[in-house]
Amino acid sequence: MNWLTPHLDPLVNQLSTCRNCLGANTTRNTNLPGRGAVVELLGHLVTLLFPGCHGHAPVVEELAGNELRALLQTVGETLEDHIRRVLCHACAHTPCAECGECGAKARASALKLLNTLPAIRECLREDILAAYEGDPAAHSTMEIAIAYPGLHAIAVHRVAHALHKDGVPLIPRIMSEHAHSLTGIDIHPGAQIGPGFFIDHGTGVVIGETCVIGRGVKLYQGVTLGALSFQKDGQGNLVKGGKRHPNVGDGVVIYAGATILGGETTIGDHSVIGGNVWLIQSVPPGSTVYNSQPAPVIKAKK
Amino acid sequence: MNWLTPHLDPLVNQLSTCRNCLGANTTRNTNLPGRGAVVELLGHLVTLLFPGCHGHAPVVEELAGNELRALLQTVGETLEDHIRRVLCHACAHTPCAECGECGAKARASALKLLNTLPAIRECLREDILAAYEGDPAAHSTMEIAIAYPGLHAIAVHRVAHALHKDGVPLIPRIMSEHAHSLTGIDIHPGAQIGPGFFIDHGTGVVIGETCVIGRGVKLYQGVTLGALSFQKDGQGNLVKGGKRHPNVGDGVVIYAGATILGGETTIGDHSVIGGNVWLIQSVPPGSTVYNSQPAPVIKAKK
Amino acid sequence: MNWLTPHLDPLVNQLSTCRNCLGANTTRNTNLPGRGAVVELLGHLVTLLFPGCHGHAPVVEELAGNELRALLQTVGETLEDHIRRVLCHACAHTPCAECGECGAKARASALKLLNTLPAIRECLREDILAAYEGDPAAHSTMEIAIAYPGLHAIAVHRVAHALHKDGVPLIPRIMSEHAHSLTGIDIHPGAQIGPGFFIDHGTGVVIGETCVIGRGVKLYQGVTLGALSFQKDGQGNLVKGGKRHPNVGDGVVIYAGATILGGETTIGDHSVIGGNVWLIQSVPPGSTVYNSQPAPVIKAKK
Repeated sequence: MNWLTPHLDPLVNQLSTCRNCLGANTTRNTNLPGRGAVVELLGHLVTLLFPGCHGHAPVVEELAGNELRALLQTVGETLEDHIRRVLCHACAHTPCAECGECGAKARASALKLLNTLPAIRECLREDILAAYEGDPAAHSTMEIAIAYPGLHAIAVHRVAHALHKDGVPLIPRIMSEHAHSLTGIDIHPGAQIGPGFFIDHGTGVVIGETCVIGRGVKLYQGVTLGALSFQKDGQGNLVKGGKRHPNVGDGVVIYAGATILGGETTIGDHSVIGGNVWLIQSVPPGSTVYNSQPAPVIKAKK
Repeated sequence: MNWLTPHLDPLVNQLSTCRNCLGANTTRNTNLPGRGAVVELLGHLVTLLFPGCHGHAPVVEELAGNELRALLQTVGETLEDHIRRVLCHACAHTPCAECGECGAKARASALKLLNTLPAIRECLREDILAAYEGDPAAHSTMEIAIAYPGLHAIAVHRVAHALHKDGVPLIPRIMSEHAHSLTGIDIHPGAQIGPGFFIDHGTGVVIGETCVIGRGVKLYQGVTLGALSFQKDGQGNLVKGGKRHPNVGDGVVIYAGATILGGETTIGDHSVIGGNVWLIQSVPPGSTVYNSQPAPVIKAKK
Repeated sequence: MNWLTPHLDPLVNQLSTCRNCLGANTTRNTNLPGRGAVVELLGHLVTLLFPGCHGHAPVVEELAGNELRALLQTVGETLEDHIRRVLCHACAHTPCAECGECGAKARASALKLLNTLPAIRECLREDILAAYEGDPAAHSTMEIAIAYPGLHAIAVHRVAHALHKDGVPLIPRIMSEHAHSLTGIDIHPGAQIGPGFFIDHGTGVVIGETCVIGRGVKLYQGVTLGALSFQKDGQGNLVKGGKRHPNVGDGVVIYAGATILGGETTIGDHSVIGGNVWLIQSVPPGSTVYNSQPAPVIKAKK
């Protein structure tokens, strides 16, 4: 018995009586996969998309045969398990009515995601090329696949968005928040983003749930594609629900720190939005938008 | 003997003669816990606050009994060890005078933190509810507990602040910088923050050491609550010491990219501060503050 | 045979026929070290620079003798292996012509980096002192070495820059992107940065490839030292190649959110650039620059 022992009983009581409190994931009440489990699953999915890039060594004959098959098996079974848990949690029946619906839907969704991977990989190929063409500092496409945070964020997004579109709750959000943690780029799984997408630097980028972004769009760090807030609402209330984030046309470039807000705001194809611009209205295709703010004051040394 | 061997002796000499240089943590000179050790401890504390959320699997019967007790024991003993080391390092006597004061204080502080955990958990319950009510994209409270970076940042802050208030050096800073690394949200352990606090997205948020923030406050990404700098001081000198960061009243909302500076700046209760606003003066309760900058220039395609 | 089995064959075919696609690192085609391997190597290099700081425990007699020698041996051999692979990949001959040039260059570069470590450590000593003097919230130099993201970013940069200057491709970029992921600070390995450099908070900082930064410079979060974009080019084209990022003189302070752009932009010694300033022209030594934007509108409660 050490100095701590006498103090443990009351603490155990206080912390475990919080059995029904918010923020506890238990087999009896919520039975969800933990964040660590979903992050591990995401790591496997990224390995399927970029074999040999994020681990320690290049793939011998590219996961040929048994290794690739084994990874797909693991990913498929884990997806089925995790999706079933999150569906049961979101289900109206608590505890689960054991109707079997969640299990059947989980299996179908897991298989659907696996079958979408080749198309996602093709889309990421266009994203890699867009980064290579769009960044004067990029020396090879492998540099982009291995090192670029913008590519990692869009890769995770394309997986998370496929799950989100298929009605899978929670798991896509855990995935996108993990990418956010690694890259500083926060893309909601609901956002629709065309191929050939490139985010350079990326820290501070926020892309909202109902954004619709065309093909070949390029963003820089600190760009927000968000909801209009009190600027439209004199009472300071947050606008909730429905379409609340902007549309961005094909080939648009948005420079660092620009903020574009509102569900009715549409940036026409091939427009260029300058750094730090604050934009809450639509602009026609081919527009160039920049700040008209006065130049900074420069005071010489006395 | 390989190609490297002949080159190692001079390098070993150069790198180890730097025995007294800055940036080396050795048993003889500093004897501090490493960052990795503190991060592991923090992981255990987060597990106590959100059981089953961040690991791989839900808790079976919520850490009931032995498992919870064992984790509390580990956390208590590790806290005692780490706090004793940082106190000895901060102590005027180098090497330690072995007076026993640091050891006694370490044990008391470790116990105090453990006994504060139930109150922290209750406070985080309010933070979860604030996020649920404040974000139209949140579908369940578990989504917030498992995935939201803003919740993670405030959870770590509430632990770090308790240690900081109790006079524990270094450890709170390592904890807050770890949360900063994961979330992009930089909250100094000294900041006082009321319950029901919600940061959405969060990347780039900076909250300074002497901030005092009320109940039910909501911030978005890129908000700085910082010290006034040369704007107040014609010679470009940093204002040091004392109260140097703002006060934020109850129910205030601060939109993305806003900067509020200065220890005498107070934002009255229920005010709303618009995106990108730069504010270095107090505003009364119920104020709405927004930028008056001219609209951006929109040039049509030629 | 479970439910997945019949679906695996077509997937294995589709994902492995992408053998020549972008984003796959295989022994036959690219044979590069994976990101995980480079990150592990970087961890060892950081341990050599800050012994005992980032692991679990302080160094016993500071890696004295055998331990330090063993780590140097590992680092040297790993560097040689990784550098040889990235040189072969960048080499015109694919597959490698086995001319031996890459191997010889790899060995020389690995040794060169090891021999640069003492000088890098000396430089970091000045960086630590600059942080200690520049931040009113810093209580000890160990706090900076263990916890400060700005110091971590500049430490990784000084290693990555040494490799970059020596003509090593890819590895420096993986290193700098790893630091970017941990700190939100994105410094291209090509940037030249003098000693005594301090970045406070740091999230969102971007420092471009051709920046030249003097001694004793201090930056805050969200500062961009970037390339001029369409502001100078009426057709919206990205300016590529050559010197495209600014020069920053000795003793300059740049406050949060400032943007300084262009390869011909020079900030004279000891200038102070205010928060959120947008600067695309040179300023003479000793300048003070701040925004002249109108004060925000403050509306009282009705």
